[in-house]
Formats: sequence, structure tokens, C-alpha cells
Amino acid sequence: MRQIFEAELKALGEGLENMSTLVQRAITQAGVSLTSTDLAVAEAVIADDMAIDALENELDERCVRLLAQQQPVATDLRVVVTALRISASLERMGDLARHIAQVARGRYPRHAVPQHLTETFAEMDAAAVRLAHRISELLVTRDLALAAAIEADDDLLDSLHEDTFTALLGGSWAGTAQETIDVTLLGRYYERFGDHGVSVARRIAYLVTGEAAESVVAH
Amino acid sequence: MRQIFEAELKALGEGLENMSTLVQRAITQAGVSLTSTDLAVAEAVIADDMAIDALENELDERCVRLLAQQQPVATDLRVVVTALRISASLERMGDLARHIAQVARGRYPRHAVPQHLTETFAEMDAAAVRLAHRISELLVTRDLALAAAIEADDDLLDSLHEDTFTALLGGSWAGTAQETIDVTLLGRYYERFGDHGVSVARRIAYLVTGEAAESVVAH
Repeated sequence: MRQIFEAELKALGEGLENMSTLVQRAITQAGVSLTSTDLAVAEAVIADDMAIDALENELDERCVRLLAQQQPVATDLRVVVTALRISASLERMGDLARHIAQVARGRYPRHAVPQHLTETFAEMDAAAVRLAHRISELLVTRDLALAAAIEADDDLLDSLHEDTFTALLGGSWAGTAQETIDVTLLGRYYERFGDHGVSVARRIAYLVTGEAAESVVAH
Repeated sequence: MRQIFEAELKALGEGLENMSTLVQRAITQAGVSLTSTDLAVAEAVIADDMAIDALENELDERCVRLLAQQQPVATDLRVVVTALRISASLERMGDLARHIAQVARGRYPRHAVPQHLTETFAEMDAAAVRLAHRISELLVTRDLALAAAIEADDDLLDSLHEDTFTALLGGSWAGTAQETIDVTLLGRYYERFGDHGVSVARRIAYLVTGEAAESVVAH
């Protein structure tokens, strides 16, 4: 029985890793779609999000089956419930990457990001991609230094998000309403991506240390 | 054993009803804070969100305990897992009401909603409050006509959300960047509130009918 359970847990872990790999690719390509105005890249991110959703459903079904058939208690039970929550966050991260690509697609063949905010969004993109990469690594290695680094990536995303508002409200902003809308939404998508990343990192840390993750304050 | 389980399930249901009641109050007061520019109302929504978060944690702990001690299978198990998901959605709805109140607070003593969009946001507010009210009712009565009505409320929210973009991009828009940002974010908060409401309604319908809820496409 224990052997079956261990094998099932391993499959759960692999499912999360697969989701994370897809999220990592999605946010990377979403960033490319913003900077390159390559319509095909944006379309790919949007289409591929369905694969992330499918993985989430599969993983959730596996969790429920595991609860029913193995009746785990104590730590084992917490692992399964935590996996359910991590998959929900990863699914949302996939959605947010898709939203970014949808903004890029909506502005094609122009850039969605105004010229003088290119640098800020390049930094947001870099932080988000790095965070996604670290989540994948954290899932495999359980190295808690990565969880701390993910919190730092999220802090940077929050700070860059603030910078976009400063730019929009600074008095020298002369963008169109469409540009203001795009910057507002893109900034929010990246910021939320970071929040979910932190949520995932804290849940993994909880699995490793057994200590309750401080609940993530969503902004 | 069965009696204990039934009592536990009843407590779970009551926990969800309590969360839903608080969400209903939060979105109602958030709407008031937008139209009245009453700072105290905005502050109350923001402060009260902690109570919703606390209820979510409590309910989640209860679910995990129930899984561990009662080891439910089949339908019982699905009920518990679904309760976990509903509480997560209700918690997010509370966050979104808080975000709306935070925008209202940020603009105090001015109105966050520009004059000529007052009517559109009043309609969004009405739809969101109605939807929240219907969720509370649905949790108690399990009347699936309410689930259908909630989908209609969400469709209306989506359509009103589109209207805000039409207003911003219509050419006659002469608002400031701050106003454009506020309208963009408020519109998104209401739209997401509707999405989560539909998600809750579909999960309750699933509990009633046993049929899998069509997964909510998040916008």
C-alpha cells in the first residue's frame, strides 16, 4: 500500500513539474510576444494555455482519486491538499501569461508597450521568467533558498509595477488611452503572476518544513 | 460515524454561507464607497476582508481535518474537495471587493468613477451585488435556477466591462491618466468578481447534479 502511495505521490510531483515547465514556457513566450510583435508567438501562448488547463484537471482528478483510494492522513494528506492548491496557482499563472499574449496580439503589428516603458517591462519580463524558472527548480530540488529568491523576484515585480504607475501619473505621460489601459493591465498581470509564484513557493516550503505558509496577501 | 460526518458537512456548508454573507456585504459596501466617497465605508471593507480570509483558513482546516478523520470516499469526498475550491473563490471575491474599496479610498475625497461612467459602474455594482446575493441563496437552497441567473449576471458584467473600454477608446474620452487607470482596474475587478461567482455557482451545481462543472474560462 505504501509503495503504491509513494508512486502516486511521485506522479503528483511530476504533474506539478510538467505544469510548471509549461508555465515557464508560456511566460517566456508571452514576453517575446510583447517585445517582438511576433503574432505567431502570441497565438502559440494563447493556444498552449489549454494544455496547462488540461494538466490541472488531470492532476486534480489524480488527487481526488488518491484521497479516495489511499485515504492518506497526517503529512501525506497535507501533501495531497497542497498539491491541489499549487496546481490551481500554476493554472492561474498560465492564464496570466495568456492575458499578456492577448494584449500583444490585440496591438499587432504595433508594440503594446510604449517606447519609454520598454525597459521597465523588460525588467518585469526578466523577473517573471526567472521566478517561473525558480519554481520549476524548487519543485525538483526543494531547495528553500529558491523560495527566498522567488519572494525577492516578487518584490521586484511589485516595485516595477509601482514604476509603471509613476510613469503614467508623472505628468510627462502623453500616451493614448489605449496605451494607458495596456500598461495598467500588463503591469497588473505581471504583478499577479508574482503573487501566485510566491504562493506556490510558500506552499512548497510548507511541504518541506511542515510550517504553515504565511498566507499571501493578494494585491 | 455517519452522523458525525453529516454534522461536519453541515458545519462546512455553514462556513461557506458565512463567507458568502461577508462577501455580499463587502461588495455592497465597496459599491457604496465608490458612489458616496465615504471614507469610513471604504476603510471598513478593507479591514473586514481579514475576517473573510480568517473564515477561509478555518474552513480549509476543517476540510483537511474532515478528510483525515472521516476518510470520505465517492460523493462525500467530492463534496469536501469542492468546498475547498468554493472557499478559495469566495476569498478572492472578498479580495476584489477590497480592491474596489482601495481605489475609492485612493481617490478620496473625489469620486474614482468619472461622471459619465457613473451609470455603467452603477449597473456593474448592481449586477455584482445581485450575483453575490444569489450565491448566498444558492448555498442555502440549492435551487439551480439561481446558478443560471448568476451566469446571466456574469454575462452582464462582461458586457458592461466591454462598455468601459468602448468609453475609454471612443474618441470622446478626455479623462486623465489616473481616471483611465481607475476605470481599467475597477472594470477588471468587477469582471473577475463575476468570473469567480460563476465558478462558485458551477461548483454548487456540480454538487447538486453530480455533473462536472464546465471549467470557467477566466478572462
